[in-house]
Amino acid sequence: MIKVGIVGYGNLGRGVEVNLKNAPDMELVGIFTRREPSSINTDSPVYALESIYDFKDKMDVVILCGGSRTDIPEQGPMLAEYFNTVDSYDNHAQIPIYFASMDNVAQANRTVAVIATGWDPGLFSLNRLLGEAILPQGESYTFWGKGLSQGHGDAVRRVNGIKDAVQYTIPNQDLIDQINRGEEIVYDSHSAHKREVFAVLEEGADAASVENDIKSMPDYFENYETTIHFITEAELKADHQGLPHGGHVIRSGYTSEENHHLYDFKLQLDSNPEFTAAVNVAYARAAARLAREGVIGAKTVFDIAPAYLSPFDGEELRQRLL
Amino acid sequence: MIKVGIVGYGNLGRGVEVNLKNAPDMELVGIFTRREPSSINTDSPVYALESIYDFKDKMDVVILCGGSRTDIPEQGPMLAEYFNTVDSYDNHAQIPIYFASMDNVAQANRTVAVIATGWDPGLFSLNRLLGEAILPQGESYTFWGKGLSQGHGDAVRRVNGIKDAVQYTIPNQDLIDQINRGEEIVYDSHSAHKREVFAVLEEGADAASVENDIKSMPDYFENYETTIHFITEAELKADHQGLPHGGHVIRSGYTSEENHHLYDFKLQLDSNPEFTAAVNVAYARAAARLAREGVIGAKTVFDIAPAYLSPFDGEELRQRLL
Repeated sequence: MIKVGIVGYGNLGRGVEVNLKNAPDMELVGIFTRREPSSINTDSPVYALESIYDFKDKMDVVILCGGSRTDIPEQGPMLAEYFNTVDSYDNHAQIPIYFASMDNVAQANRTVAVIATGWDPGLFSLNRLLGEAILPQGESYTFWGKGLSQGHGDAVRRVNGIKDAVQYTIPNQDLIDQINRGEEIVYDSHSAHKREVFAVLEEGADAASVENDIKSMPDYFENYETTIHFITEAELKADHQGLPHGGHVIRSGYTSEENHHLYDFKLQLDSNPEFTAAVNVAYARAAARLAREGVIGAKTVFDIAPAYLSPFDGEELRQRLL
Repeated sequence: MIKVGIVGYGNLGRGVEVNLKNAPDMELVGIFTRREPSSINTDSPVYALESIYDFKDKMDVVILCGGSRTDIPEQGPMLAEYFNTVDSYDNHAQIPIYFASMDNVAQANRTVAVIATGWDPGLFSLNRLLGEAILPQGESYTFWGKGLSQGHGDAVRRVNGIKDAVQYTIPNQDLIDQINRGEEIVYDSHSAHKREVFAVLEEGADAASVENDIKSMPDYFENYETTIHFITEAELKADHQGLPHGGHVIRSGYTSEENHHLYDFKLQLDSNPEFTAAVNVAYARAAARLAREGVIGAKTVFDIAPAYLSPFDGEELRQRLL
């Protein structure tokens, strides 16, 4: 059995706990939290984060489930000194720096640190690489959604007159259909995505002026096609509590002048954190197995042979899935 | 530069020749054929197959482009004794035997033999593995088409009264839509695919009886929804000379009782052999690089880290694609 620790118990940590139940070859040793352990509502063992070093030889891999802004950059290098780690660090621009810092620690301490797994970065990155490697003459497109965007929801909730709100990012299906037909398109983030807001107004707020404040917000909504629905608090609670997400990675390319090919990878997820956690769990299996083989250092989805993700051996995989 | 040989010059061999022009880090050393070399119409160097052993130290990898029925099982083990090889052996049922025979030779001679690349087996296999590893609670579905099926076309052309014909395999889009909506479906090869035939009748043949002979052919058409269009020879030549193919690998799974996720990988290919060749070329790059690192033995798409497929280094891949 591969023994696993969870660091951090928000949506992602809970998702890892759920997904470990689907893994016949893995078991949860404990959840490690900065909160008071007794305050955590779960049947799994919960420990104070400081005590994690007592588990040095009792866990094959720990999955870092904190935020990418401050938690992971801080905890990653500290924990990689003692444990094999997996994280879903998703600050794309900072990945090279984070990779270097994790690689230094993991090389020096002979651990494996799998960084930036999940679906984007993660499975989407893998498909961007495969699409480009197989069809070097072509264009790659990433579309996100339909999905709940936490950052955009936060921005709307800060607008005066808004009591509560959610925001969905919606891919431009017309553009996807055009790519499917092999047509040339003009792709930018603004044309590729629409934004849909479901918002509850404060009592007495002026809908027209609130709508204008949202739609004119630079970076977040300006220059996007944005639709705003004002709904009741009861409707928001009833219909918008999920955390769906997904998207496409598409490679549209040519092998010769005559022959066009379309490569399209799509995810449609009821729960963004639970699916991200599912990917983390598969890469945690890989991290533990690589470590057993003596591999060390930081790794990404690009560096790991797919067979390491499966609990089945090569012979069965070739017979059943090849 | 990675130096490449092509063995066999049918549709696939021509596809590899075309795709090598898109690979900045690879060069074609020669095409090796059982035919008279001077009879081959190409600008590339062509040699008799028997002379390939003279090129032992002049090629980093050879791509086997013969048929899976007799060519590859015979040539593979012979050539893996001297060269790193890549093939698109596609006889699914025989893959374990072929793997073992190639692994024996490659281990003994310290070469790398990448077997069964292409898109199915190949990219579709990779997605069957990833989908299952990430969503262990779920079902996988493979749909083929819309695509030209050589074997079914051959079967129709053997029917009395048929002068010429092509057959397209068409996936059942209703079933795919149902899976997309997370519905339970009954999947079998018959319900998942429809068959469409475009046929030219011999003069004086009876259309109704020919139609009946086709539709009642066991294994090939019986129990499939089959549509037959009788067309003229001119129409067949004008509209049905391509070799399109493609399909879907779908994983429909749950991480918890509430949360359903859909994983859908789709290919839509103008030319089956040219795209298969594009995949072969990327795996030939991987084979040559693995061999330089001292790796030996038979490998499949499951065993090769994706980064090996790309001409770019890890730092660039992380910065640009992760």
